[in-house]
Amino acid sequence: MYKMDRLDMFFKPRSIAIIGASSEEKKLGYAVLKNVIDGGYKGNIYPINPKADYILGYKCYKSVLDIPDDLDLVVFVIPSKFVNPVMRECAQKGVKGAIVITAGFKETGLEGAKLERELKEIVKSNNIRLVGPNVLGLIDTHNSINASFASFMPKKGNIGFISQSGAFATAIMDWAAANDIGFSKFISIGNKADVNEIDLLEVLKDDNDTDVILMYLESIDNGRAFMDIAYKTSKVKPIIVLKSGTTAAGAKAATSHTGSLAGSDQAYTSAFKQCGVIRASTVEDLFDLAIGFAYQPLLNGNNIAIITNAGGPGIMASDAIENFGLRLATLSNDTVEELRKNLPSAAAVYNPVDVLGDALADRYEFALSKVLRDENVDGAMVILTPQVYTQVNETAESIVKAKDPKKPIFSIFMGGKTISAATKYLMENSVPNYSFPERAGFVFKSMHDRRIWLNKPEPVYRKFDTKFELAEKSLRSEDRSRRPSLGDWEVREVFEGYGFTLPKTLLATTSLEASDFAEELGFPVVMKIASPDILHKTDVGGVKVGLRNKDEVIRAFDDIMISVRRYFPDAEIWGVSVQQMLPPGKDVIIGSVKDPQFGHMIMFGLGGIYVEVLKDVSFRIVPVSESDAMNMIREIKSFKLLSGARGEKGVDQNAIVDAILRVSNLVTDFPEIVELDINPLRVFEEGAVAIDMRLTVGGGTE
Amino acid sequence: MYKMDRLDMFFKPRSIAIIGASSEEKKLGYAVLKNVIDGGYKGNIYPINPKADYILGYKCYKSVLDIPDDLDLVVFVIPSKFVNPVMRECAQKGVKGAIVITAGFKETGLEGAKLERELKEIVKSNNIRLVGPNVLGLIDTHNSINASFASFMPKKGNIGFISQSGAFATAIMDWAAANDIGFSKFISIGNKADVNEIDLLEVLKDDNDTDVILMYLESIDNGRAFMDIAYKTSKVKPIIVLKSGTTAAGAKAATSHTGSLAGSDQAYTSAFKQCGVIRASTVEDLFDLAIGFAYQPLLNGNNIAIITNAGGPGIMASDAIENFGLRLATLSNDTVEELRKNLPSAAAVYNPVDVLGDALADRYEFALSKVLRDENVDGAMVILTPQVYTQVNETAESIVKAKDPKKPIFSIFMGGKTISAATKYLMENSVPNYSFPERAGFVFKSMHDRRIWLNKPEPVYRKFDTKFELAEKSLRSEDRSRRPSLGDWEVREVFEGYGFTLPKTLLATTSLEASDFAEELGFPVVMKIASPDILHKTDVGGVKVGLRNKDEVIRAFDDIMISVRRYFPDAEIWGVSVQQMLPPGKDVIIGSVKDPQFGHMIMFGLGGIYVEVLKDVSFRIVPVSESDAMNMIREIKSFKLLSGARGEKGVDQNAIVDAILRVSNLVTDFPEIVELDINPLRVFEEGAVAIDMRLTVGGGTE
Repeated sequence: MYKMDRLDMFFKPRSIAIIGASSEEKKLGYAVLKNVIDGGYKGNIYPINPKADYILGYKCYKSVLDIPDDLDLVVFVIPSKFVNPVMRECAQKGVKGAIVITAGFKETGLEGAKLERELKEIVKSNNIRLVGPNVLGLIDTHNSINASFASFMPKKGNIGFISQSGAFATAIMDWAAANDIGFSKFISIGNKADVNEIDLLEVLKDDNDTDVILMYLESIDNGRAFMDIAYKTSKVKPIIVLKSGTTAAGAKAATSHTGSLAGSDQAYTSAFKQCGVIRASTVEDLFDLAIGFAYQPLLNGNNIAIITNAGGPGIMASDAIENFGLRLATLSNDTVEELRKNLPSAAAVYNPVDVLGDALADRYEFALSKVLRDENVDGAMVILTPQVYTQVNETAESIVKAKDPKKPIFSIFMGGKTISAATKYLMENSVPNYSFPERAGFVFKSMHDRRIWLNKPEPVYRKFDTKFELAEKSLRSEDRSRRPSLGDWEVREVFEGYGFTLPKTLLATTSLEASDFAEELGFPVVMKIASPDILHKTDVGGVKVGLRNKDEVIRAFDDIMISVRRYFPDAEIWGVSVQQMLPPGKDVIIGSVKDPQFGHMIMFGLGGIYVEVLKDVSFRIVPVSESDAMNMIREIKSFKLLSGARGEKGVDQNAIVDAILRVSNLVTDFPEIVELDINPLRVFEEGAVAIDMRLTVGGGTE
Repeated sequence: MYKMDRLDMFFKPRSIAIIGASSEEKKLGYAVLKNVIDGGYKGNIYPINPKADYILGYKCYKSVLDIPDDLDLVVFVIPSKFVNPVMRECAQKGVKGAIVITAGFKETGLEGAKLERELKEIVKSNNIRLVGPNVLGLIDTHNSINASFASFMPKKGNIGFISQSGAFATAIMDWAAANDIGFSKFISIGNKADVNEIDLLEVLKDDNDTDVILMYLESIDNGRAFMDIAYKTSKVKPIIVLKSGTTAAGAKAATSHTGSLAGSDQAYTSAFKQCGVIRASTVEDLFDLAIGFAYQPLLNGNNIAIITNAGGPGIMASDAIENFGLRLATLSNDTVEELRKNLPSAAAVYNPVDVLGDALADRYEFALSKVLRDENVDGAMVILTPQVYTQVNETAESIVKAKDPKKPIFSIFMGGKTISAATKYLMENSVPNYSFPERAGFVFKSMHDRRIWLNKPEPVYRKFDTKFELAEKSLRSEDRSRRPSLGDWEVREVFEGYGFTLPKTLLATTSLEASDFAEELGFPVVMKIASPDILHKTDVGGVKVGLRNKDEVIRAFDDIMISVRRYFPDAEIWGVSVQQMLPPGKDVIIGSVKDPQFGHMIMFGLGGIYVEVLKDVSFRIVPVSESDAMNMIREIKSFKLLSGARGEKGVDQNAIVDAILRVSNLVTDFPEIVELDINPLRVFEEGAVAIDMRLTVGGGTE
């Protein structure tokens, strides 16, 4: 029996109907039918149009219900108002997949959104998979499917492309055609009413025709599911994503430092990093990465050789390599000797290798093949400026001949008219040509990052013995809905429950009690207002530090009370907490905030101005693995202050890792936590103490 | 009489001789002669070749001495060993200018360097101006001069180009031809034995045919002279420079923080900023800026409008605008109304204006001209994706029609084959087409920066009453050559002489004297070893702070002596300085270091980890103007800490400006100062005190 894998109804349908097929050349219904035919589709093709008998030589039907055959796939090119009724007929017919090219749904406003909800219900309740609405269509070059209104069929190739914008997909296809770049599958997902980037990643992951996955996305609906499939896929083949809308300032009310630093784009950045997605910042990055990864083997190390026929561009390339954190390969003595023996005496035989302005193709070929055979070289850039003796086309051929299946080569032929045939030839023969050395450096860097990603061990998620009930009591107390912020004592219980070390603290309700407690804890002490209603205690005079005797404690108690009352006359006040004063250490901040797409993120930074003024912080999506926690610490700019700068001893980084992982566990166990700050966590040479914490919770426990 | 302006012998010669002219097509001597002829040169042309009678129809001479005519310009294409003898003949003949295309000089090693020195002497002592050696040649499209071996003459245009690399010049010319870009003058300067970028900037500044100056440089020999002419020129027309070799780590021995942070590239960055040079970081930047500035009027504000036929690319463009610090223009109500009335209801009539996927050329034209007429709009990006109904070529024509002489427009036609004729048409009609919205954003940003530069008032350099002699006594003491670093007391006199406030300090030679002095100054005090041989006092236990009574002072004196002796048994020790301890404030660092090309640079940053770990510093070349000093303070990331972050009061920024300007005066007056640090300068709400200073001087007083 015919078995259908996942989305095979789109890629291996046994029959296709085009609803709204037309014989008028200017109509989309004509373009789509013609594309299906010209695309070389082998199954049965059924134009649907109540007003025609035959279109383009194919018998036309008034309705899908009239087709004397099983129907796997239908393509809609009729006005939006007719889509839902016809979709019901398709359901009746037992159709398995539908592509709704038609626009006029969610993207146009409330009316369209209603239509789209209805459409979703119809397909869902009838087990029809739906691509669209509002799409360019879908192409599979290896299965000869072109169910789109694209103006031509792209070349067969190894790049799978998923685009949330149909117009952008058109531009990409046009660019690809001009640069001789081929695709395996090409899918426009539009409004994503059903099939989305997650479903398609699953398909492309296992698709033997696809070596590189390219995506243009404007939004991701289910961040966790995306990360999950992207993680699995990126271990098999590269995923390169251009995500637009990066600077759109989310109108998010932020009450914590973490919240105010975590723009919506931060979640995408962190998520992509954690699941191995290569992020293209610009369209240009997307193009350049696509051809680099699609055409060349991956870089194994970071040692790059440069071959050039001009000094200036050689310097530029060296600059680029250094700027991208790669290394100029040190050629082995053998290579240097060979080059010295065979190149003219004026040639530079160290890296960059300058074969000189009068180099013909054979000199390039010799130098490139020697350099590639050098085990100190992981990849090469070949630079050509079209000088008076330069054999532009022959040099392109030499480069193709010298190609190495294990080491990537990029060419940089600089110029315009003189080089255009050569660059076309290079691209046709899978040597990416970049117009500028910096672009090749950028792609090498991304390749090197991917190598590191592939070498990264599976993440380890640490579990802890926690007092879940203790935390739960505070977090899910009955009056929580009235008070989204937890009071000091409740917060203490949550963090104690999750294994944090807190400073010894006693809650005093009178000044005398405070002075007794201070004596018990030992001077000096810190005193803080204890109130569930006051978050920023320092700002309202609610904190006094370094109190050295009973008199100072008594005075501080009264001062705090007076000051706080002045700011918040109606606040619920539980008293003043008296806390042992800790020895100096490094103060860091660990926070968590909940992102609507990806869930909780954890932030790490050094306390005080590092976070507030310099915004020197790192983020990860929960759950955070051990290595991610360590990298969070290492990737902030002020890391040296923790590892021991200026003759100081370093602090206990493991204690920070431990704290990050405990927070990760805490917010995973209690998804209702909206924001959380430990500020500061004081870290010593050994161990760390959470001095001050804040925590707010949302609606329910989900 | 014929009067020759500056370098007119190159651009308006009355006669040209080609030394080494050849009739063999494969030789450079053929290419150059042919180029001179085909370039349309109107004066007399003289091939020089002892073995020929006529070449390309021109009478050939054995030597320049045989020419029966005055000779303004000679072009050398003979082997390097023959150049100098023939140059002597040229001198005898009274030649005014020479272009030595021949390579094989300084760039090949010691032997070649010797040849080049000789060549320099010949031309200098005979008043011959020399371009080269080792160049592609020189082209002036408006004066019909092509004295180069370029394979074709570039189109006439308004871009002047100066290149230190002949090969790169070739590539640029080829690229320009493919993109229909024209040049006014095109000069390859090679080894710069005589004529260099400074001479040519002088010419291009006043050249009416040149609107934009492009340069590719690998080095600048005389930084000050460059800044001087570049400043004057950049006030008249944009100078865009690609300077390669940016990351080459100079092997500079740095003894100060300033020195270690001032890489050689820092001087270029600062110099370019101070003289209005627009720096291209990559070849791509150079290209994109060239066409933007050459083809379009300058941006007057930073409000950019976007017109697009697709949502996705519109988002990308908005992102780019925001990322480059520009603003999405807020369209006026009138414009919005007009657009609403005339565009389909689904169109987006706010910025970005989405004319929809089915937009024909007329809809683009309507929207673009309306938007350009809006006074809230300073410039526009027009994005086109080639969709099924899109009129690609007609839309290009519409854009050209809608052009505004006062507001820049860039087009972003995305794709490949489908758009290539249209983008060619746009370029021919002076509308720069960029492949990606980010590139247009980048050029708009550079235009906006240039507008700010043009609006900047003339710099004001503050002068101070200084005690020059007091400083001179310390800086130029007789034994200075033995001790490049000044001792504490000498340094104090220098800074006191230049009007800095220093903490009260007394030099004690015994512990008892120290304790008396401490009492005199008032406790607490700071004590520091006083020795001309010890720079990093803290590292050797040479500093004690917060000494609160006589006992502590006495103990500190002994501890310091013992500790220092252990590290430096042979150091010259003058005693221990006892210093009043200052109230807290913000500690900043001001330093100066001497760059070989540009002279003294001044650095500013916040003290401690901000400089050492975060490297958050700003630089300027001396002399520093008042506004530059203020900008140095404002452009560091931690500026907020000075202006009053987290509820603190700000500190006295004028006192910092004052200190920067005094340092600028100091190093200008004493060019022998190699490095200098004030670390820290403690700044209060009012005033600032220089607490610790270091200073080293070099060889002579120059």
